[in-house]
Amino acid sequence: MVDAQTPTFTRPVSAPGADPGRAMTFGPDRALALDAGRTLAPWTCAYMTYGTLNAARSNAILICHALSLDQFVIGDNPVTGKPGWWPLMVGPGLPIDTDRFFVICANVLGGCMGSSGPAELDPATGEPRGLSFPLVTVRDMVKAQAMLLDALGIEKLLCVTGGSMGGMQALQWAALYPHRVASAIPIATAARHSAQNIAFHEVGRQAIMADPDWRGGRYFASGTQPSKGLAVARMAAHITYLSEAALQRKFGRTLQDRAEISFAFAPDFQVESYLHHQGASFVDRFDANSYLYITRAMDYFDLAADYGGVLAEAFLGSPTRFCIVSFTSDWLFPTSENKRIAHALNAAAASVSFVEIETDRGHDAFLLDEPEMLATVRGFLNSVAQAAGVR
Amino acid sequence: MVDAQTPTFTRPVSAPGADPGRAMTFGPDRALALDAGRTLAPWTCAYMTYGTLNAARSNAILICHALSLDQFVIGDNPVTGKPGWWPLMVGPGLPIDTDRFFVICANVLGGCMGSSGPAELDPATGEPRGLSFPLVTVRDMVKAQAMLLDALGIEKLLCVTGGSMGGMQALQWAALYPHRVASAIPIATAARHSAQNIAFHEVGRQAIMADPDWRGGRYFASGTQPSKGLAVARMAAHITYLSEAALQRKFGRTLQDRAEISFAFAPDFQVESYLHHQGASFVDRFDANSYLYITRAMDYFDLAADYGGVLAEAFLGSPTRFCIVSFTSDWLFPTSENKRIAHALNAAAASVSFVEIETDRGHDAFLLDEPEMLATVRGFLNSVAQAAGVR
Repeated sequence: MVDAQTPTFTRPVSAPGADPGRAMTFGPDRALALDAGRTLAPWTCAYMTYGTLNAARSNAILICHALSLDQFVIGDNPVTGKPGWWPLMVGPGLPIDTDRFFVICANVLGGCMGSSGPAELDPATGEPRGLSFPLVTVRDMVKAQAMLLDALGIEKLLCVTGGSMGGMQALQWAALYPHRVASAIPIATAARHSAQNIAFHEVGRQAIMADPDWRGGRYFASGTQPSKGLAVARMAAHITYLSEAALQRKFGRTLQDRAEISFAFAPDFQVESYLHHQGASFVDRFDANSYLYITRAMDYFDLAADYGGVLAEAFLGSPTRFCIVSFTSDWLFPTSENKRIAHALNAAAASVSFVEIETDRGHDAFLLDEPEMLATVRGFLNSVAQAAGVR
Repeated sequence: MVDAQTPTFTRPVSAPGADPGRAMTFGPDRALALDAGRTLAPWTCAYMTYGTLNAARSNAILICHALSLDQFVIGDNPVTGKPGWWPLMVGPGLPIDTDRFFVICANVLGGCMGSSGPAELDPATGEPRGLSFPLVTVRDMVKAQAMLLDALGIEKLLCVTGGSMGGMQALQWAALYPHRVASAIPIATAARHSAQNIAFHEVGRQAIMADPDWRGGRYFASGTQPSKGLAVARMAAHITYLSEAALQRKFGRTLQDRAEISFAFAPDFQVESYLHHQGASFVDRFDANSYLYITRAMDYFDLAADYGGVLAEAFLGSPTRFCIVSFTSDWLFPTSENKRIAHALNAAAASVSFVEIETDRGHDAFLLDEPEMLATVRGFLNSVAQAAGVR
């Protein structure tokens, strides 16, 4: 059973005219076997497409999204009413050219924008699944995407790309389905979550679970949500997305709407107001349980561990062409972690190019106007498309 | 009015045999005028001393403690029952040699180990002062210490030293009372709190204030405390005290007491258990309101701002000899911030030496066995003592 329908969002739609995308529901004949040992059936994958699939079905590019993002890569996001998250990268004439390529982006398994996850309604109870939903891994996310592509009749991807957790998925795709991936562009990512990465995620989870409104994950039933805890989690995470230099350049010690410090605990500094805004706006668009699930999936990611502890083994004999991109000031997924990937690919005799981009914008640089990143993706995709005979 | 007495601790004493130190209470004739515009009277300064003041009163060294520490530098801490925080630096024959020097360490104003602060009992109500206590600054802390030294009959310090916020106090001492400070050793510190520093502190404060058990700071009355919020604050802060490399070396992705990941939200990884332990043990020994006050004091610290925005002006004509120490892997108070201090001192034609120590242990290196730091402090103090005629 495979049904294409309009996805159901847990959050109210705030941009009624926006494209809500599509969702595919897979029945018991397409059950999803999870790493946690449980099987999902039925399950749903919400997704967006941009551009047109060519007759040869050879121009498909899969974009994998990061922790707090979703399938609305460009155009208005129906839930937030705000523009998509990669407007400089994807679109007509842009590096991922929707006049030329067929672009797919799916909400990750465990997400809260229409795909199966803890926010999904359980038809048996009419309530969100909450913690009864099984934990998922990055590999589970990728398997789900592969089944979506099967249903869409796409056997092979011209490219899979994404930043941060999106890059983890791109790596997992290349390792799991090498012959379905002509090329991969993992950006600002890692083949494993480090101890520091796990530590920051655990702080966020503890902030959420410490909020009495979390109620053991059953907050929907009481009409509450752990807003304060989720806001603290987002604030802590947001610091890690920026560099110290970028924070100093953007905010420094500038006060917010006042000439003098107030000798009080309300925000005195612009950087505090900025963090408060990041926390408050995240709570309006994201589900706290989903945040727990997706951070855990990232913590569990350790690609080498699936291949006897040797990362190169994940890519032995890989036909995929890789382009690895890192940013000098990214301390969450630093160049050293991206280089580890490039070294492993070289050790596996895979085709790999590696670009470290000089910027002070930190991890979030992958979302911003970084000309060298945009030019790198454009050039690499041109070359890959030419080799594949895609005009 | 100046009374020396045994301090009263908000927390129960867990090491009954330990030296509880002394406390000095200053009456209305020694009121403390705070930067916030309010005046404290009476007010109390709790402190410890080690070693013996010489007849010339020329061998006094003031140690200033960091955010989460206290006056119990060595020996058993009466409240935690654990050893003091600088056992490799201070003691007989050690770099800060208690056979030779008279060492003083005072609990900072705003602290919770006997000095006046939000945890102090208000005699008028019999309840802790909570948020009715005025906000304090690093300068207020230093002014309080100066009044303590007056009461102890110590006109001039051979040295003032400390790491992190202790280093901020050392800098403030040298700027405010140049002729009372023969030498200063600020370690792993900064002359201002950066935007990133403020951001991390704000996350911690929000975690505390989001905890319903905080009750607007009036938690004592209900017999509760915001344990979960304070634990989250401590966990987030603790990550910043270590380097990414140290976390990876100590914990990596090693699991805690299990062979496989659990597909659950309990701690799977050692680094998670470690953070939980840090959070839980901090809650047992620290007051949540004090944490708010002291983090705010650090945020407000910007020494240059008091001197027309030019840091060198703070030290013009300074007779003090400075030794600035930083650690290569400290990303909370990075070498760049310590170098800013050294540059300003050079611009002010002050006597300054600067040492950057190679270590992967991050900010907390100042508390650890770092032989180059210990040798640097020993050598510098020997030279300063010799110049001052202290044997």
